[in-house]
Amino acid sequence: MFNNRTKIKALLSTEPTGQEVIVMGWVRTFRNNQFIALNDGSSINNLQIVVELGLLDEATLKRITTGAALKVTGTLVPSLGKGQKAEVKASAIEILGDSDSEKYPLQPKKHSLEFLREIAHLRFRTSTFSAVFRIRHSLAFAIHQFFNEKGFVYLHTPIITSSDAEGAGEMFQVSTLPLENLPRTENGNIDFSQDFFGKSTNLTVSGQLEGELAATALGDIYTFGPTFRAENSNTTRHLAEFWMIEPEMAFYDIQDNMDLAEAFIQYLIRYVMDHNAEDLAFLDNRLKEEEKALPQAQRSEQGLLEKLQFVLDNRFERITYTEAIEVLLASPAYKKKKFKYEVKWGIDLQSEHERYLVEKHYKRPVIVTNYPKDIKAFYMRQNDDGKTVAAMDILAPGIGEIVGGSQREERLDKLQTRMQEMNVPVKEMEWYLDTRRFGSVPHAGFGLGFERMVLFVTGMSNIRDVIPFARTPKNCEF
Amino acid sequence: MFNNRTKIKALLSTEPTGQEVIVMGWVRTFRNNQFIALNDGSSINNLQIVVELGLLDEATLKRITTGAALKVTGTLVPSLGKGQKAEVKASAIEILGDSDSEKYPLQPKKHSLEFLREIAHLRFRTSTFSAVFRIRHSLAFAIHQFFNEKGFVYLHTPIITSSDAEGAGEMFQVSTLPLENLPRTENGNIDFSQDFFGKSTNLTVSGQLEGELAATALGDIYTFGPTFRAENSNTTRHLAEFWMIEPEMAFYDIQDNMDLAEAFIQYLIRYVMDHNAEDLAFLDNRLKEEEKALPQAQRSEQGLLEKLQFVLDNRFERITYTEAIEVLLASPAYKKKKFKYEVKWGIDLQSEHERYLVEKHYKRPVIVTNYPKDIKAFYMRQNDDGKTVAAMDILAPGIGEIVGGSQREERLDKLQTRMQEMNVPVKEMEWYLDTRRFGSVPHAGFGLGFERMVLFVTGMSNIRDVIPFARTPKNCEF
Repeated sequence: MFNNRTKIKALLSTEPTGQEVIVMGWVRTFRNNQFIALNDGSSINNLQIVVELGLLDEATLKRITTGAALKVTGTLVPSLGKGQKAEVKASAIEILGDSDSEKYPLQPKKHSLEFLREIAHLRFRTSTFSAVFRIRHSLAFAIHQFFNEKGFVYLHTPIITSSDAEGAGEMFQVSTLPLENLPRTENGNIDFSQDFFGKSTNLTVSGQLEGELAATALGDIYTFGPTFRAENSNTTRHLAEFWMIEPEMAFYDIQDNMDLAEAFIQYLIRYVMDHNAEDLAFLDNRLKEEEKALPQAQRSEQGLLEKLQFVLDNRFERITYTEAIEVLLASPAYKKKKFKYEVKWGIDLQSEHERYLVEKHYKRPVIVTNYPKDIKAFYMRQNDDGKTVAAMDILAPGIGEIVGGSQREERLDKLQTRMQEMNVPVKEMEWYLDTRRFGSVPHAGFGLGFERMVLFVTGMSNIRDVIPFARTPKNCEF
Repeated sequence: MFNNRTKIKALLSTEPTGQEVIVMGWVRTFRNNQFIALNDGSSINNLQIVVELGLLDEATLKRITTGAALKVTGTLVPSLGKGQKAEVKASAIEILGDSDSEKYPLQPKKHSLEFLREIAHLRFRTSTFSAVFRIRHSLAFAIHQFFNEKGFVYLHTPIITSSDAEGAGEMFQVSTLPLENLPRTENGNIDFSQDFFGKSTNLTVSGQLEGELAATALGDIYTFGPTFRAENSNTTRHLAEFWMIEPEMAFYDIQDNMDLAEAFIQYLIRYVMDHNAEDLAFLDNRLKEEEKALPQAQRSEQGLLEKLQFVLDNRFERITYTEAIEVLLASPAYKKKKFKYEVKWGIDLQSEHERYLVEKHYKRPVIVTNYPKDIKAFYMRQNDDGKTVAAMDILAPGIGEIVGGSQREERLDKLQTRMQEMNVPVKEMEWYLDTRRFGSVPHAGFGLGFERMVLFVTGMSNIRDVIPFARTPKNCEF
């Protein structure tokens, strides 16, 4: 057995009593030929290794460079340095892997996020990104734990699909046909019957419809999987490949749906605050430092930790779309013609409108319900007013839409009529309609964009920095 | 709030004291106009609803058909029937959704698995499939819990990739180019610079290489995501789209790797036995019934529960590939020429060989190590004998290979040489080689095929029956 190490996170919370320990990790810095800051990825904090004079020969000392991998045997003793309870007094150091400090791209200094994006394969080794990815892990685990505790079934909906029912945007085609020489039918069309699945297929944009099938049998289900949009959006909030969580619940109406979504988001934030306090403190400080360079007006009113605590302590504001439009029309921003896009009943809320509602007016997350039916999907439940549907979007400060959901139309006739009105291919979706034919029930669900949630919790500002390897237009590296 | 129901699973473990309850679910059967078996997907067990004479009018009674959805208000009282502790004496029944019993595809009788595969959107409503998918959920949760407890970071590796480094098989192409009219370069090739990512891209076959990048920074990571093979394999063990778990650990050698994999599999089995006892008992019984139709020789020696307990109680056998070949050559099966494929050192073990080792010879899971280097991937660590690599495959009874893993080659020169020998494009993989250039460490990992694990634990025999919507050649429905 090689791996008889103790992780640094564990050592740093152990009472140091001179016990023998083995640690392994990578050198962050080496000062005065005496103090090694060692990191193994388990914690934002480094472990200080003290190398006494004469322990190592000159040649070995020279190999202790930034990025080098070490195996250290020694004793865990109280530290005299500030900010750390324990350090290791080394009795033996083995160099597992050298790192040529001339060539190592990560120097012990601050690198820009843009530069680190170029070397995404190494950025896991920085404090910022190790914190981000540990928090991403915690959020993912908290999601599973939240739903598991409530008796939800985790459902893997298909990634490759032959339906484009959602109409949620541009899709990626999936094929095994030889592109250089595509087979054709007699009348000159591409012969998809020769494709792997015998038909044209795409990458999924949502697992919701399949989720409804399972929910109307198992009760409560959720998906958590990758989702795709082939949109040419080069923004700080869009990815071509991202992860989404889509719970779907039988016997839920839109109120139940809102209650669940709010409890869910608060649970996730609380979990990370409980389990990643040191990572959050680091990122909180990082954000403060970043914002020092900005003019006062562009700085956040709240620090990261303050913002998260605020979301825990305050209920989300719940307003209807109609109320949202009224608030916007009555706003100083509208009167001073500060909105670029038109404001009137029937519009799709633009980012500037959402930000005004959340950041200026209500100053907290807002749930907007009952949108005009014409700007929402066919499956949303029609309200009695004939104009709106039981949709709900959650808008978060600094992020905008983080959750989109609705009560689903469970009435077969109304659903069929709406599908026809919106040119959804009814015939290809008989399987979906079967849930309304046989024991149809009120049900609801929502989707949470995982990376947007990670952005919100880490305080990072570009979505490419919260996913290990971003896929965006013209960018598919690693 | 609509959803003020109590789930049937909770009610069935509650002491019945006449308390008022609300339950919602779907009718499985309705006997004598008096006893409704109601199921809400939370449990394999139905709740008995007792309808007293005169509670409902004739028209309503007729609407209580198999598949109909009900909201039942009543009192939870001790049951006189056998096999159930509690039942609900209804005070009000509301029909949430009708089900025309003439048209409902699921009748209260046994359907074949083949038929249910055709109506995969409804099979969640059967006892067998609800049990399978609850167990699938539990396995997924147990996977996250196992790694979270050990301080692993859950990593989402990319689904769309531009590299084919693994060479693990046929890949699905991903593109947004207009297939009807593909853009061409001046010399007539397809102009992938106009594609979404500016190059040719595919669906991932493994997240391992990206996993290594994160492991050599964060220490221990695991992936759990969809993986794709465009292989034209129509078998009971292959899917074109399946889920895989790939842990990758820094500072691990192959022994550490085997220890982790064995502990992992045992943890998963124990978790399901602890949390899904009723579902397992149902499937155990189902398997016994199925096998009654088979000749004695084809029946399993152990029942499902027996088999799972056996795996918990016994260590996995650990043998080298060379020992495996010796066992096969000395076997009665070999001497009687019962193997279809040749047996000699250097072959890739065939399914018949694996089954002999596991089911006939060792009668338990077997870990085979140190395979010939020429039948394994370039990244596996080369042993000192110059002939073998530090690979490890775990073979399970009835399933065959369930885990494939190895210690990785951490020595830059040896890795580069092997890549050249195997025609792996070294230049495109400089990012991968960087992990060996800067602080390289011994590390290892493995992949577990999730659906094969679900097969093993549920005792189902076709992999299409343990994933919600199977993707196989010429099949991409729902």
